[in-house]
Amino acid sequence: MNGTSAPSKLKYLKYYLLGVADSEGCFCISLKKEPTTRFGFALDPMFHVTQNDAGTDVLELFKQALTCGRVMEKSGQPGTKLFMVDNRRQLVEKVIPFFDKYEPVLKAKDFALFRKIVLGLEEGKHSTLKGFEELARLSFEMNGNGKQRRYSLDQVLETIRARAGSSETIRRTPK
Amino acid sequence: MNGTSAPSKLKYLKYYLLGVADSEGCFCISLKKEPTTRFGFALDPMFHVTQNDAGTDVLELFKQALTCGRVMEKSGQPGTKLFMVDNRRQLVEKVIPFFDKYEPVLKAKDFALFRKIVLGLEEGKHSTLKGFEELARLSFEMNGNGKQRRYSLDQVLETIRARAGSSETIRRTPK
Repeated sequence: MNGTSAPSKLKYLKYYLLGVADSEGCFCISLKKEPTTRFGFALDPMFHVTQNDAGTDVLELFKQALTCGRVMEKSGQPGTKLFMVDNRRQLVEKVIPFFDKYEPVLKAKDFALFRKIVLGLEEGKHSTLKGFEELARLSFEMNGNGKQRRYSLDQVLETIRARAGSSETIRRTPK
Repeated sequence: MNGTSAPSKLKYLKYYLLGVADSEGCFCISLKKEPTTRFGFALDPMFHVTQNDAGTDVLELFKQALTCGRVMEKSGQPGTKLFMVDNRRQLVEKVIPFFDKYEPVLKAKDFALFRKIVLGLEEGKHSTLKGFEELARLSFEMNGNGKQRRYSLDQVLETIRARAGSSETIRRTPK
């Protein structure tokens, strides 16, 4: 850990990292327009922690403690670094079990919703209209109830229902 | 802890709080113009942690773990709460020993300077011009090197030297 004073006992280090993640981490589900997908939108989960350059060592500690993810410059923000996990397998196998054990306090609600959505994606719930709607609704209850989202819940639901309807039509047409 | 999922073991809780403090805490020395003091400026140390309303429980945990301080609304910022210790005795007897044991990582430098200044005030170093200058200089190495300060280091040094000079004159005049 390059001369810094991080807790040397792994258990203590993990509680320290929980405190940092609870403050400067984000359990995020981004909703992106993706015309090639069935419903025209994709639910993209990721976990990240932000620091300025001076905090890079702490981001490396996340990488070590969670045994996954990468440390990178934040796109378009020189001087800002991210620890980032956006691989669904690693979210399911590493990140969620970590925070099941070291439970977020400030971000308890966001983590619970994140967990539900990621595990829902893992089960393939998003492949039906009903399941996709359910996961999309949950994502709008996170991180300030979708206030910072590009698309409103209504816009998302309208798009995915229209796409579901047209694919129904396509499937029915040949009969 | 009112139904939240904070670490139940005190030792773990303290490392968790270290992580929160390392992210959202501040070891601050404010430099205020105080015309009634010997050098025209006062060095005011305080430790605080900021949260929005939803984080009030975590601020209460700081109060319990450090057995001092108070939780209050941030002046002029409704919806923002502070855990705050500005009593020098409590800083010396509670806050500094806590962070001597649970050592800041991200704020290691700020804490080391804060510690030096608070203990310097405790020894009465600020009662001589040389000592006051030394402590003021240290305060300008903290939290981004004084960039957000109202007065520059030069302005402070000029004022306190002028005051020291005039008090010398006053003391000498009667002779």
